[in-house]
Amino acid sequence: MEEKRLYIVGIGPGGREDMTIRADRILGECQVIAGYTVYVDLVKDFYPEAEFLVTPMRQEKERCIMALRSAASGKKTALICSGDSGVYGMAGLALQLAEDFPDTEIEVIPGITAALSGGAVLGAPLGHDFAVISLSDLLTPWEVIEMRLRSAAESDFVICLYNPASRKRSDYLARACRILLKHRDPGTRCGLVKNIGRSEETMELMTLGELESADADMFTTVFIGNRETFFSGRRMITPRGYRNV
Amino acid sequence: MEEKRLYIVGIGPGGREDMTIRADRILGECQVIAGYTVYVDLVKDFYPEAEFLVTPMRQEKERCIMALRSAASGKKTALICSGDSGVYGMAGLALQLAEDFPDTEIEVIPGITAALSGGAVLGAPLGHDFAVISLSDLLTPWEVIEMRLRSAAESDFVICLYNPASRKRSDYLARACRILLKHRDPGTRCGLVKNIGRSEETMELMTLGELESADADMFTTVFIGNRETFFSGRRMITPRGYRNV
Repeated sequence: MEEKRLYIVGIGPGGREDMTIRADRILGECQVIAGYTVYVDLVKDFYPEAEFLVTPMRQEKERCIMALRSAASGKKTALICSGDSGVYGMAGLALQLAEDFPDTEIEVIPGITAALSGGAVLGAPLGHDFAVISLSDLLTPWEVIEMRLRSAAESDFVICLYNPASRKRSDYLARACRILLKHRDPGTRCGLVKNIGRSEETMELMTLGELESADADMFTTVFIGNRETFFSGRRMITPRGYRNV
Repeated sequence: MEEKRLYIVGIGPGGREDMTIRADRILGECQVIAGYTVYVDLVKDFYPEAEFLVTPMRQEKERCIMALRSAASGKKTALICSGDSGVYGMAGLALQLAEDFPDTEIEVIPGITAALSGGAVLGAPLGHDFAVISLSDLLTPWEVIEMRLRSAAESDFVICLYNPASRKRSDYLARACRILLKHRDPGTRCGLVKNIGRSEETMELMTLGELESADADMFTTVFIGNRETFFSGRRMITPRGYRNV
């Protein structure tokens, strides 16, 4: 019997070199590549023989079902996600919806999420325990986000913020900073990376006090150090432990 | 003038296909590859023309200086880390020690850390906000680890545990579970992956109550779900938000 298989592939920040060899090989073998328009545009030229299926923003469920139907029809199919396939990615939804496609196997292929690619740009901000928090309140009550910010700040996690702002949520990063500042020193080392892995990539180092008025958009990833994090030249470094152990 | 450069390269879980294309290309171009013996053994056969420099476990500082000296001598050099170069990796220490080698540029190349590779094996446990905590108290006081476990549990983060056990710390996972159980339901969904990306890779799904007596070693990565995490067949899934928003 013909094997029916859907690959959920994390493509990393965008450039082909930032994909894993496995992700690149699988996309090269797929007859169909499905995804959000913007991500499909990033990889389209690399796989000229594939058929591309796109859906606009927010139509995640439709995108998964489209990809599952393609795989179930016998076409080797990949559903691509930016960054990792699992971290705020489509893998969970696809696995859930796959219950209606019992003959189709799902394989999840990890990718470099923004915490890692952005971290490498800044130096080594994630050298010790860290928390990843999305500031998007589309599917999560703001109270839950606030509780997580508070507890991550209190227990000295390095914090990596995804979706720190969007057109509708332009003040969310400032709101988050005001919560963090209740528990953390305004001199806490922070870094901000925009458009990771693309030609417009930029990075900035600043303190938590300065971060409150920093300019962030939906292509920004924000890093807030722990109490040991320091700057060395133009790099942000969190040591692998505490000095006085 | 000759360019002097040291690459800190995350090689992912171990197999060549799990490296990024960039990491593989850079390692192929390097004259010298430095690292901990076990990680060098994983990649040695892929780059037959490189010279390999190894140091045993715990000699992280010596390893960095050895790699920095090689790069400073004009040899294109990489220092490899398992998983990501930054997440509990060598990038921070190398950047710090590089202050004594002002002519040598450092470039950090990210890799797939165990939270991502292990997550992909289990399904999609990291679909929502998560905290990564190492249970190793070699460089971190146990009280800090305990505080982070408590606050991550209280604020419903998905939790990914690195270094859950070693020969000397055989009961640390059980100790961590007892702290988590004070704040989280014993039915909380958990998963455990051993030897990620290697031929002996295994995975197990269980509840937090069962995790307390689970068998973990230094090659194990542990995932503790949030209150929405569920099992679907043999997969662990954390939805991208909360049902009742």
